[in-house]
Parts: sequence; C-alpha cells; structure tokens
Amino acid sequence: MRILLAPDSFKEAASAEAIAQAMARGIKRGNPQAECRLMPLSDGGEGLTQALVHATAGTLHNVETVDAIGRPITAQFGFLGNNHASCILHTAVVELASASGLERVSPADRNALSASTFGTGLLIRAAIDAGADRIVLGLGGSATTDGGTGLARALGFRFLDTAGHDIPLGGGSLVDLERIDDSEVPDFVKNVPIVLACDVANPLTGPEGTAHVFAPQKGANTAQVELLDQGLANLAHAIMQYNGRDIERIPGTGAAGGTGGGMLGLFNTTVRPGIELVLDLAHGREACAWADVIITGEGSIDSQTPYGKVPNGIAKLAQSQGKPTIAIGGTVTRDPHTIEALNETGIVATFGIAPGSADLATLIANTERNVEITCAAIAGTLRVASATAVAAATSPCESA
Amino acid sequence: MRILLAPDSFKEAASAEAIAQAMARGIKRGNPQAECRLMPLSDGGEGLTQALVHATAGTLHNVETVDAIGRPITAQFGFLGNNHASCILHTAVVELASASGLERVSPADRNALSASTFGTGLLIRAAIDAGADRIVLGLGGSATTDGGTGLARALGFRFLDTAGHDIPLGGGSLVDLERIDDSEVPDFVKNVPIVLACDVANPLTGPEGTAHVFAPQKGANTAQVELLDQGLANLAHAIMQYNGRDIERIPGTGAAGGTGGGMLGLFNTTVRPGIELVLDLAHGREACAWADVIITGEGSIDSQTPYGKVPNGIAKLAQSQGKPTIAIGGTVTRDPHTIEALNETGIVATFGIAPGSADLATLIANTERNVEITCAAIAGTLRVASATAVAAATSPCESA
Repeated sequence: MRILLAPDSFKEAASAEAIAQAMARGIKRGNPQAECRLMPLSDGGEGLTQALVHATAGTLHNVETVDAIGRPITAQFGFLGNNHASCILHTAVVELASASGLERVSPADRNALSASTFGTGLLIRAAIDAGADRIVLGLGGSATTDGGTGLARALGFRFLDTAGHDIPLGGGSLVDLERIDDSEVPDFVKNVPIVLACDVANPLTGPEGTAHVFAPQKGANTAQVELLDQGLANLAHAIMQYNGRDIERIPGTGAAGGTGGGMLGLFNTTVRPGIELVLDLAHGREACAWADVIITGEGSIDSQTPYGKVPNGIAKLAQSQGKPTIAIGGTVTRDPHTIEALNETGIVATFGIAPGSADLATLIANTERNVEITCAAIAGTLRVASATAVAAATSPCESA
Repeated sequence: MRILLAPDSFKEAASAEAIAQAMARGIKRGNPQAECRLMPLSDGGEGLTQALVHATAGTLHNVETVDAIGRPITAQFGFLGNNHASCILHTAVVELASASGLERVSPADRNALSASTFGTGLLIRAAIDAGADRIVLGLGGSATTDGGTGLARALGFRFLDTAGHDIPLGGGSLVDLERIDDSEVPDFVKNVPIVLACDVANPLTGPEGTAHVFAPQKGANTAQVELLDQGLANLAHAIMQYNGRDIERIPGTGAAGGTGGGMLGLFNTTVRPGIELVLDLAHGREACAWADVIITGEGSIDSQTPYGKVPNGIAKLAQSQGKPTIAIGGTVTRDPHTIEALNETGIVATFGIAPGSADLATLIANTERNVEITCAAIAGTLRVASATAVAAATSPCESA
C-alpha cells in the first residue's frame, strides 16, 4: 500500500515536515510493508517556503534584512529545486511573514502606522540578485498596513509627497503620497513574474478593507484605522495615475495589509489560492496518482477546514483521481455538517490524536508522539481491511 | 464487510450496550454497506447480566432483596435465552454487585464488619425457584468481607457459634464461628452448578488476602482488617471441618470479600476468568467466525488491558481465527510496551475518541457521540482500504 503523507503544520505545535515525519514513523510501525511519500504542505502562509523547498528538493538561503519595524534580522527565501520539470524558470519562494510578520514583533513593539514591508522587498531583491526569474510570494501573517509600498521601495520604487520628497515608511504616511516614481527600478525587477499565494478576498479599502478588518490586531486604534484606510485609498489613486490600474475594489488586494494591492498595481503579478499553488509546485497531482491513500492533517479540523485549507485542498485533488483522504487533527470537529462537508471533498475519515482528557498545553507538547501513534493505528486498520478484502476478492479467481 | 461490535462498558460513562449501539450508528454512517453485529461484553463484573442476556436474547427479572447493609432494594438477575444451543441447562446469571455492591452504599453508610452478601443469596434463591439449574455468578465490586456466608445463609446454611446460636451477618462475626450446619439446605440448592466469573487471584487470607487488600476501600480500619482476616481464617477452618475442603490459600478465594472462598468451600462451584466465560456464553467464537473485523473498546485502554480485560479477551479469540481487532477508548495508552502487548493479542489499532483538549467530565458526557464519530472514521478507513485492495487484487484476474 502506498500512502502519501501530506499534512499542514500543526500551529504552535510542529512544522508540516515534523508532522509528516511523525506520520511516517507511525505508518511504518503499523504496517512495515507500506510505502510512504512525504509531502508536507502549506496553504501559502506559514511554512510555504519549507513546503516548496522540501517538495522540489530545493535550497534555503539566509538574507540579512529588517523586520516590520526596521530592526536587523536574518530571514530566509528558498529556491525551488531543478527537478521541477514543469518550470523552466528559476523560481524563488518568499514568505512575507518571514521578514515582515506579526510574530516577529511583540505586542508592545507593534506600530500599525510605521510598520512596513521593506524587509520583504530586501528578501525579494536578494532572490532576484541570486538569479531568480520568478517569485512566489506567500501573503499572510503580516504586521503591516503599508499597501506593499515598503516592499516596492526596497526594489527601487519611490513614493513622493507634494514637495517631491520620499514619504516615510509605513501606512501612516500614505495620505501624503502624491506621486510614484519608478525611474530607479531596473527593468528586470519590474518585469519579474510574481505569483501571490493568497487566500484572502478582502478589498484594499472600505469597511471590508484591510485597515478595518486586520489593522486592529496589528495595534491600530480607531483613528489609526481611518488614517490607514485613507492612505490606502490614496495609494490606489496614485497607482491609477501612475499606470492606469484600478486596484481599489479587487478582491485580494487587501491581503497582507494591502500588499496584494500594491503588488497587483506595481508589478507583473498574478494571484493564486495558496493551497492550489503549493499543490501545483509540489507536484501534488503526480503524488496523488502514485498513492493508494492520502493522509493529511492540521492543528484543528474545524468549520474552516472545508474552505481552502490544506486538508480540503489535497483531498479535492486526490478525489479528482479517485483517491481517498484520511485527516487527523489535534482538535477535530464533532459538527455533523462540517463532517459532511469534509466527506464531500473526499475526506473519508477524520481522527483526533488526543489520548484522553488533557489540557491544550499537554496536547501540544505531545503532538508528534500522538500523530505517530494515531497513524500507526490508521496503518493497522488499512492493512487488515486490505487483507480481508483481498482474501474475499481473489478467492473467485483462484477457484476459476 | 462484516463488523462485530464487542465493547465493554465505558465506566462511569455508558453501558456496553449503549457503546455498541453508538458504534453501530457510526459504522452505518461511515460505510452504509457494512453489516454490524452487536455483542456488548463484560469481564464478569459490572454489566455481566446485561451482556449475557443481550447475547442470548434472554430475559431480566426483578427481585425484592436487600443491599449489603440490609436495606430493602430491587435487584435483577437474568435468564440466558433458549437460543443458547451449547447449553441444555436453564442458566441464570447473577452479579454479586447488583445486590451487595459497594456502589449501592454511600461511603458514610459503609460498614466493613456487618456488610453481608445475604442479598445476593436471595437473588440466587429467586433464580433457582424460578427454574434455574445453573448459576453464573459475577464476582467483583462487593461491599462485603463475609466470605460469602451471607449468601450461603440465604440458601439455607447456618453458621453457629460455640453455644449453637447463629452468628450475626457480616465478616466481623466470623471469628466466633464454630460450626457450619447444612441440614436446612435443600439438595437441589446444594448441588446446583455455580460458575464464578472471577478475575481476582488473591487468596482468602494473609497479606495478599481479601481483608488486607480490599477491606480498607470498604470502610475497614487497621484493627477491623485484622479482625476480618482472622474471621476468614476461622471460616476456612470451619469449612475444612465441615467437608474437608482446604480453601484458604487457593488463588481467587479472596474474590468479592472472600465470596470466592465460601462458594468453593460450600457449593458445587467452578471458577472461570470472566471474559472467557462471557465469550463462551455469548457465542463469541461464532460471532468472530462471522466477522471480518472486530471493534472493541473500554473506558481506558491502559497497561491493565492486556491482562484479562474485555478488549484483550475478544482480540485473542478473534486472533485464534485470524480475525483482526480494533480497539477504541475514552483514554488510550501511549506506552509503547503496552501497545506492543496489545498488538500481540491481535489488537491491530487503538484509537482514542477524544476530539481535542477537554476535561474528563466533558469527555464522559460526550462519550456516545465521540464513539459514534470515531467509529464512522474507522468504517471510512476500512472501506477505502478494501476498495483499493480489491482493485489491486482483481486487476490481474481481469487481465488474464
């Protein structure tokens, strides 16, 4: 039996790669004859770089850059491996959160007005300088609301006020933006294809826009939310004047504090749902074709899971090839409607990994062990069912 | 696929029958084509009567009797059904705990010296009067340390002191026992075969005896433990004088406050491990032969499970016929040695039913629902494995 192990990370507990390895140990224990293939996944947020580098046997590269509030840090981008046959481009993968993420900045240090994506731009620039001719950029988890202007500035764009001076970094200054200047952006930077991995449908501005919906968790008060929203509207206006693109109401332009909008407005950018992009680049289709059964998982299998998360994405791809998916989770829903929705995407079984009554901290601490043992039980169950069925199915042949 | 559902009760949460029904609902949900057979089990303690009556389509009968401290109560015995082909005897099943159990008496009301098995004797007498010509007696959970003398007294035995007077009920008086008189015991009572379902190996007396090991939880202080131990030694002496049987050091005579010893000393009694007896009477062998897979379970799958508990018993029986067993539990061990021991008895997979972090009370309250959904996942897993294996196994036939 061939088993594809394709989990997301278990948030706050273990990376997708650690989970996949724990799954493999369990499968080997429950059925030593089983063949396993590990395909740790990501929905485009946390773990995107690691997932794609793992899937394509790519490489990781450290870059000196800055975080959202300008402090020097080391962050990583990845190059996809050369075994990625469908792609003749040299593709780099960058997570916005790796430099400009909210988790990099403690709540006390957060500054919604001045936080910028400049550090992510330095990462992209380093990738281009190292030879990348395509960028996959994972949005999500940002500490910023600057419309991606910091990122663009690191790549050569200038954002000028009425006096022709550069406005300060951060979304709080965007209300002063008068004009965008690309005279210092090299053509090879301006034209590099950028694919955004994006699961957010929010527009740039307005009540559903990024400032109103996401800035409060980045530290903005009510007045700051309004200022940021006006700044982003002003950015949209400036982009319209710069190249005629109207980004303000396009779904997804609100992703990562408006970085989605800035990228679509200023660069050679396309948008893809994160899990679809990851499955494409990770050869998900071929992996499903190889497998008899897929095992996926994430920290919480809940009412969000049927909508664009990793288990749903891999299960749909597997289902399109007639392959069943089993899901495991640190927490698993008991809601019948969610279970039905999961079944419809091809998730035929969902198992919790908890061994009994326990608090969350204990469960999190024992995640890999519980994943391993649960997968051993799944492998044992798959094995006996196979043996029983084969015995039943082959006996008519033998007697013929 | 044929699935035998053979759980124990989940202590403090749900009866074996309720668990089996929840399992069946889950299996039907996960694989509507599966055939289920329900065989709720018991290891001879709690649930024995219900399990055997269910398995044989027998009947339950209410009897007015008394509890361990003499208060009037209604308790039940069962008759095994007529479909029990291997048995031409009319067998009644009685649980000692149903009349003389510790759970019938609140801690404040417990009296280790005067508590007696008299009420259980009334139950047995009622069963014999109703036509039973064999008694299965489940030991365990007793509130008593009377060596079964109360039970014997209800069936006609007299326990006399040096003055020839009946000593009071309860283990505290056994030190005054001089002589056993069976002149009032009808022959049909004295000769009725009694099978003890017993999983305790303790002897009647001494440091490993029933008084030292079990009387403290029945309310005895140190002095009372000594008094009870001396009383039981005196009982063994009296039985030796009465009919020459030496019961004092036989393993199992310490079961249920020495009831094991009294029964072996005074009646036509044999002892069987509880789960073996139950599986025999419940036609466990035929049920395993019918099934492709067995699902069992108990409240806690732990280091005790490989030793004489329901999951271990049914798994060994199934394994002897080449059938695999899957176990579920409210709490499941993560100890590798225990898991290995379970595997060796034929338990190929163990799943916990907990949906995530939760306190014990919440888990207990949701037991049946969690059992149902876990079994749906198991059924889904079994189904896909079967389909995959059948496809793989039959394709060579088709191409030949």
